[in-house]
This record gives sequence, C-alpha cells and structure tokens, in this order.
Amino acid sequence: MAPDRREAFLGFLALADRLKHTLRAAHTGDRRENSAEHAWHVALMAVTLAEEVSPRPDLGHVLSMIAIHDVVEIEAGDTFAFDDAGLLTQLERERAAAERLFGLLPAEVGRRLRDSWEEFEAQETPEARFAMGCDRLQGFLQQVECGAPAWKRIGLTKTRSLVRMQPAIDLGAPFAPMIEALYERAIGQGLLVP
Amino acid sequence: MAPDRREAFLGFLALADRLKHTLRAAHTGDRRENSAEHAWHVALMAVTLAEEVSPRPDLGHVLSMIAIHDVVEIEAGDTFAFDDAGLLTQLERERAAAERLFGLLPAEVGRRLRDSWEEFEAQETPEARFAMGCDRLQGFLQQVECGAPAWKRIGLTKTRSLVRMQPAIDLGAPFAPMIEALYERAIGQGLLVP
Repeated sequence: MAPDRREAFLGFLALADRLKHTLRAAHTGDRRENSAEHAWHVALMAVTLAEEVSPRPDLGHVLSMIAIHDVVEIEAGDTFAFDDAGLLTQLERERAAAERLFGLLPAEVGRRLRDSWEEFEAQETPEARFAMGCDRLQGFLQQVECGAPAWKRIGLTKTRSLVRMQPAIDLGAPFAPMIEALYERAIGQGLLVP
Repeated sequence: MAPDRREAFLGFLALADRLKHTLRAAHTGDRRENSAEHAWHVALMAVTLAEEVSPRPDLGHVLSMIAIHDVVEIEAGDTFAFDDAGLLTQLERERAAAERLFGLLPAEVGRRLRDSWEEFEAQETPEARFAMGCDRLQGFLQQVECGAPAWKRIGLTKTRSLVRMQPAIDLGAPFAPMIEALYERAIGQGLLVP
C-alpha cells in the first residue's frame, strides 16, 4: 500500500472520531447521546430485525449506509428533527461536508462512501428504506426511554411527530407495530401531546 | 407481530443502550471512549477498507459481527487487552452474558445473534478475521490518537503489544502497513516502550 494511500485512510479514520462528540437531541443516562453511538444502535436494530421484513434486504448494503449516514455531521452537526430553521439549511450544510470529508479518501473509496450516503438520503431502494426505518425507530425509542426532555421542551404533538415517523410506519412490520406501541407509551407517560 | 414478540424486541433494543456506558481503555476528547461508539468506528473502518482485501469479504456478515461483537460487555464489562487477571475470567463472564442477553430475544433471532458473536470469537472465517483486523486497528489508532494514557500507565512494550496486534498484522494489507505506520508513530511519541 502506497504511503499516501495509507495516510489518506488513517487521516479519514482518525477524523471520524469527532462523530463521538456530535450531540443529538435524545439522552442516554445523564448525558446527551452522540451520533456515533446512535449509529451503532441503529446497526444493532438492523441486524436484530433483518429477518422480520420480506423480501429480506441486503444487509451489507444496509449496514454500510447506517455506518456512513451521519458521518457528514462531523462538520454539519446534528439537526433536531423539529428544528425548522436548521432543517432549511441542513441539505446544503451536509452536501458541503460530504464533499470535504469523503474527498479525504482515495478517489474511488470516497466515491463509494458518498454513493452510499446519497442512497440513504434518496430513499429509493428497499435497503435505504429499511435503514431509514431502523434510524427512525432508534430515535423514537431513545426519546421514549429517556423521558423525551427535547419533546417536552417544545410541547411536541403526535401530529407533528408523525411528519417524521409516518415514512417508517408506512414500511409496515416490524416498524409499524413497534412504533405504534411506543406512541401509546409516550402519550400515556405525557411525553407527547396526543 | 404478536405483542410478546414486539415487546421482546423492544426490551432487548432498549437494554442495548447500556453499551454506551461501558467504558474502554482509550480516550476520545477529554473522556473515556465507550464500547458503542467504538463499535461504530470499527464498522466505519470495515466499510472504508472492504475493497482493500482480496477476496472481498461478505460485508453483511462482517458488519453484523461488528455490531454484535461487544454486546456481551453490557453485563461483562470491557476487559483491557493487557489486564491479565481480567482476561482469565473474560470468556466465562462473556458466555454467561451472551446466554442472558440473547435469551431475551425470540429464540431463532437470539440464536442468530449468538452464532454471529461466536463466529467472531472463533476467528475461523475470513469475515471474522477481517472484522477482528478492523477491531484491533480501531483500538490501536484510538490509543495513538489520544496519547495512550492507559499504555503509559503500565509502561507497555512493543513486544507485549504485539501479542494483541500480531493476528491483525498477519492479515497483511491493509492492516499490516497501517499498523506498522502507527507503531512507528507510537514509539516516536514515547507512547510505547520500543
């Protein structure tokens, strides 16, 4: 392996450490959750639920997208699902970050990772949709488990929450029954306005 | 989906959150790294380096093992690679944890996850070896990047470190050249005794 190729890999992989310091809206224990541990939790959901969907998605494809889907947040930050002002600039910020971050890698590797990120964003393949279902389920479960301080702060209603969750519910089993059970629990515990 | 199946999934996936609080020997920023974010970082390495090995491993298989490989630490804790007393009891502690944790899932799902964990541990397939290479590379890179306080505390020598790293070096490219470059850097910076 040529030294510059080796250093390109090491540089990118060392920089990726910063995703462990990108904070999300949900809590874990007595602190905010970060995007790196979120991505692991989403991957565990995908592995656990992979045989609950039919036809079965290509898991290599799904798990690659999940590992990569938030890397752009190293530069662009996490955007809370109900931060309307942040959402307006999110796409532009993330595209600039993808350009710079994947550009650190050898060209064909960077292109492969960027394609995977774009496939997740485009939501056109069964794998991208399954990965999205796991991503939304993780975000929702994490909020319900931590008492959803971020939802309570903005008085989130079920109707507004559904704008984000409906695409995952529309995937059917296993997402729909799990998310519906979590809605019931969230409303019962006063975390969401019915 | 039957309610008890749904609740088994939700219970396991909520419990998995605890891996975000299992601390490892390496640091990230001004705190200890946890096993959940480590597992994400290992997955990112696998995706990034997947086409550097030949024959190319099955990535679904590799990334499933990586997502699962540390789940037993929820109960058994992380064992520092140079904690000889801990290593003596590690296997037994982790087996008991696997029994209990994967046992929370519907039987055939728990068996599939447990098989994946055992495949990683057994190191008999190309996929398990590639996953191990990424795991060792992540642990080593993370120590070098954070200034390796845990290595310095025990005065770790290169010879002793190689007991852990040689299996990854033996995989050849891309692991050998990257790890060799990191050894040079670590010794140059006084993190390891030559």
